[in-house]
Amino acid sequence: MVEGGALGQVNRLREASGEIEWSEAALELTRHMSKTNIRLSDYFSTQLHTHRNYSLIIDQISVLIISSLLQCNFRRCFGSAATVIERNTSFSTLNSDDVSYFKELLGEKSVVEDEDVLLTANTDWMRKYKGSSKLLLQPKTTHEVSQILKYCNSRCLPVVPQGGNTGLVGGSVPVFDEVIINMGSMNNIISLDKVSGILVCEAGCILENLISFLDNHGFIMPLDLGAKGSCQIGGNVSTNAGGLRLVRYGSLHGTVLGLEAVLANGDVIDMLGTLRKDNTGYDLKHLFIGSEGSLGIVTKVSILTPPKLSSVNLAFLACEDYFSCQKLLVEAKRRLGDILSAFEFLDNQSMDLVLNHLEGARNPLPSSMHNFYVLIETTGSDESYDKEKLEAFLLSSMEGGLISDGVLAQDINQASSFWRIREGVPEALMKAGAVYKYDLSIPVEKMYDLVDEMRIRMGQTAKVIAYGHLGDSNLHLNISAPQYDDKILAQIEPYVYEWTSEHKGSISAEHGLGLMKANKIFYSKSPETVQVMGSIKKLLDPNGILNPYKVLPQSLSSYH
Amino acid sequence: MVEGGALGQVNRLREASGEIEWSEAALELTRHMSKTNIRLSDYFSTQLHTHRNYSLIIDQISVLIISSLLQCNFRRCFGSAATVIERNTSFSTLNSDDVSYFKELLGEKSVVEDEDVLLTANTDWMRKYKGSSKLLLQPKTTHEVSQILKYCNSRCLPVVPQGGNTGLVGGSVPVFDEVIINMGSMNNIISLDKVSGILVCEAGCILENLISFLDNHGFIMPLDLGAKGSCQIGGNVSTNAGGLRLVRYGSLHGTVLGLEAVLANGDVIDMLGTLRKDNTGYDLKHLFIGSEGSLGIVTKVSILTPPKLSSVNLAFLACEDYFSCQKLLVEAKRRLGDILSAFEFLDNQSMDLVLNHLEGARNPLPSSMHNFYVLIETTGSDESYDKEKLEAFLLSSMEGGLISDGVLAQDINQASSFWRIREGVPEALMKAGAVYKYDLSIPVEKMYDLVDEMRIRMGQTAKVIAYGHLGDSNLHLNISAPQYDDKILAQIEPYVYEWTSEHKGSISAEHGLGLMKANKIFYSKSPETVQVMGSIKKLLDPNGILNPYKVLPQSLSSYH
Repeated sequence: MVEGGALGQVNRLREASGEIEWSEAALELTRHMSKTNIRLSDYFSTQLHTHRNYSLIIDQISVLIISSLLQCNFRRCFGSAATVIERNTSFSTLNSDDVSYFKELLGEKSVVEDEDVLLTANTDWMRKYKGSSKLLLQPKTTHEVSQILKYCNSRCLPVVPQGGNTGLVGGSVPVFDEVIINMGSMNNIISLDKVSGILVCEAGCILENLISFLDNHGFIMPLDLGAKGSCQIGGNVSTNAGGLRLVRYGSLHGTVLGLEAVLANGDVIDMLGTLRKDNTGYDLKHLFIGSEGSLGIVTKVSILTPPKLSSVNLAFLACEDYFSCQKLLVEAKRRLGDILSAFEFLDNQSMDLVLNHLEGARNPLPSSMHNFYVLIETTGSDESYDKEKLEAFLLSSMEGGLISDGVLAQDINQASSFWRIREGVPEALMKAGAVYKYDLSIPVEKMYDLVDEMRIRMGQTAKVIAYGHLGDSNLHLNISAPQYDDKILAQIEPYVYEWTSEHKGSISAEHGLGLMKANKIFYSKSPETVQVMGSIKKLLDPNGILNPYKVLPQSLSSYH
Repeated sequence: MVEGGALGQVNRLREASGEIEWSEAALELTRHMSKTNIRLSDYFSTQLHTHRNYSLIIDQISVLIISSLLQCNFRRCFGSAATVIERNTSFSTLNSDDVSYFKELLGEKSVVEDEDVLLTANTDWMRKYKGSSKLLLQPKTTHEVSQILKYCNSRCLPVVPQGGNTGLVGGSVPVFDEVIINMGSMNNIISLDKVSGILVCEAGCILENLISFLDNHGFIMPLDLGAKGSCQIGGNVSTNAGGLRLVRYGSLHGTVLGLEAVLANGDVIDMLGTLRKDNTGYDLKHLFIGSEGSLGIVTKVSILTPPKLSSVNLAFLACEDYFSCQKLLVEAKRRLGDILSAFEFLDNQSMDLVLNHLEGARNPLPSSMHNFYVLIETTGSDESYDKEKLEAFLLSSMEGGLISDGVLAQDINQASSFWRIREGVPEALMKAGAVYKYDLSIPVEKMYDLVDEMRIRMGQTAKVIAYGHLGDSNLHLNISAPQYDDKILAQIEPYVYEWTSEHKGSISAEHGLGLMKANKIFYSKSPETVQVMGSIKKLLDPNGILNPYKVLPQSLSSYH
């Protein structure tokens, strides 16, 4: 089409003033190029060579520039030149009838077109991903979610479900003009069984609110994250969030007992069981745990919450090398296994960053700078015994040379200040400038080799910051630079993914794939496995309206 | 068809000598009756009333009797008159070419046609379900499993995957003539990571062998079952087996880190990750955990094994009423939470049965008969402290009147003899005569109400025996009678299922649905949910060859 009637089309478009038409012309052009695998510069030199028609070329370039100036959302490019995403052409575009329908269904107040609100909802926490949705809906009931999806599915209107929007892979913001379904209004706690500790609540409940609620009843949430003040349980479940307590309580696949989800066609799938054991048919809830809203929208959750144990102890330790951290972990699992509730680490570059960028942060072990810091938390039922046990363990670890220094939190304030160091690294990174974030799972023995290699690779151009959940083999590798720069990115990717894949690691331990890594899935999953994922996506969401462009490569999640 | 040309058909069949044709006539008849929901006696009295044609009726009855004499496998009826299962007519029948193919593929020794071996493999552990397979295959590699399935799928030959054949719902034996794929030859341990405790092994490894292997390396399996001497890990995973340690280590959905499975078309899905955290795409392994071999055959498993903790204590306690058992559980969770590893119960009828039928069994608390017995096991890292803690807990429970008597195992032999009581109930039940087994999950508070109601309901006709994993709300309800009797069954079913469903319980906590409860799934799952299960079955196994007639209602798992 571009080659045939492109000139006429461009001329026509030049006269037109509408944004959409400019965008469509640009879309045609990029589509043609992506189909034939031609790069922009190659394309134009071929055109020039073939047609010798400067006017045509200039017109085409104009189209691209204008559509780019208009912040055309029909083509997005994130960091890597290889990741070109096109809007799925089978999707409809929102019109005033749609908005009227939603207003009728939800009431005026729950249909948000306010630009400021939309700007926030279109942008992710890191300000790295930005969509251009024109509409945000706030359903209050499962029925409303069902009606919204039924309608959107029939109209082929894409949607993005949004919880606290604290994701780190661009999974919770629109890529183009998807309708945002914000779950924050579904925030009721439905029940808590005080015998079994089973909590049932709506998806929009903020994690910290659930933590406080449970605290009053003698229970705790089996997961805890730095983002707890904003993130919602529905988002936690949909992304299979990990966090700080996984080493003790396991993943959400183990602790979520049931859920309710709405499929793309509006069908409500009630799997909201409250039983610890239920072997009646396929355990479908697991499809919705960690599928990032691409198979259905989680509306309610039933979760097993452990009893709040009275005695919590926290040690902040220093190790001189990574091997000592590893050995310390093995020993801690064996000797503190019954009370161990967190085993976290950060390296000295992370500590540096926190001390430099986080107000009020101070090193709990200030006498000298150490290479590694480890936080060990225990949770048990016997204050004096647990402390004694931890102290005995630390003493023998110090005698054995595994730790070179350490301090036990004396009260809750000191414990908070220790956690502030570890939990504050992401915030410090944000303040330090641009950051390339990688959330990897790599067998513990090899984990830090990657960090060392990256330091050599990056040289002076960027800092390599490593911390994470050592107890679960989860490394947060961060490359911190003054600003984003494609040259830096090219130094990191695909190297990081290739290295992780070679060492049988996961390129996303707990953050999910979202938009950032949808096309990177093959680094961690076999083609046959991804193919089955694609078939399941197609089965449950045949029009591909649910959180499009995310999780799976676009070839598998868009069918048109 | 029966009404129209039945007489002619029957006459024709009378002259015919082939087994198949007799069966087909019988099939037509039963199909007609099942379609119109007519019972056998009602059907014939209607026929008699309408046609006054005794010859027709006699012919039809002859067909049924002859086909039954021929042990016709085209119709099987288990216990309940409502459960009529027909052989899927789209399946092929095994021929000599098939057998030759398998001999070529696997070698003569791995293709078993021996009648004695087949008789054992066709019959379940309880001798309640019996198939008529003519062939058992013993693949040694994933590739062989893949080739077998690829072939069977192309030929539309149904298969039943078989592990240790210790299932209790008829899931692991053929219903008709399915080819048995016995996994016992795939019994290699592939690796154990001694830092993380991650074990990778083939599906045919016997659970007890894995337990012994790990014991030598300082780890334990996160599950333990009475059937451990025979059951295989692949079967455990495929049925999401629960068992004695679930209260401590959670379900296999939490502890299985990865698996390899072969789909019906022979595709090998490699999900054999060894990472505790991996959020790259849909976590498909969960589809194969608990789907009872109906979506694929599990060939390898990667599982997180906890460190073996040195101190294990076991208390055998008596409670006078069920309310005390419940309160004891809540207290134990709160006060022993960090070391509690089992909380089991049995009632006095179970104890009676064990004492009467199990050689060498003796009541650890013989002074008087109590109403309930509870086993509490703790597992921790500090011998003297753990014992002290348990003793203090027991003392306060005794003072508070929750327990009326109790004894702590003094050595491993005594501990074994305590476990023998609890684990011996199923064996004692088998020895006592016929047994109707129900594996239910019901909220703890209401669980024993059902037992009381069943005792009233059954009166003197049968004994009601109750025991189970109280810590996980899992009741094993057993109705024990001198012999199987449809009148007894009618007293139990559907009442037990209806009661469980009304109380939001699960009609299969850990045994699965198998053949026994495939049609009962709606008591625990919503129609929309079951519909999605059916679509997933159809997607992954379009010819329905994998463990047919099991898990899902036949209307959803047979498509022809």
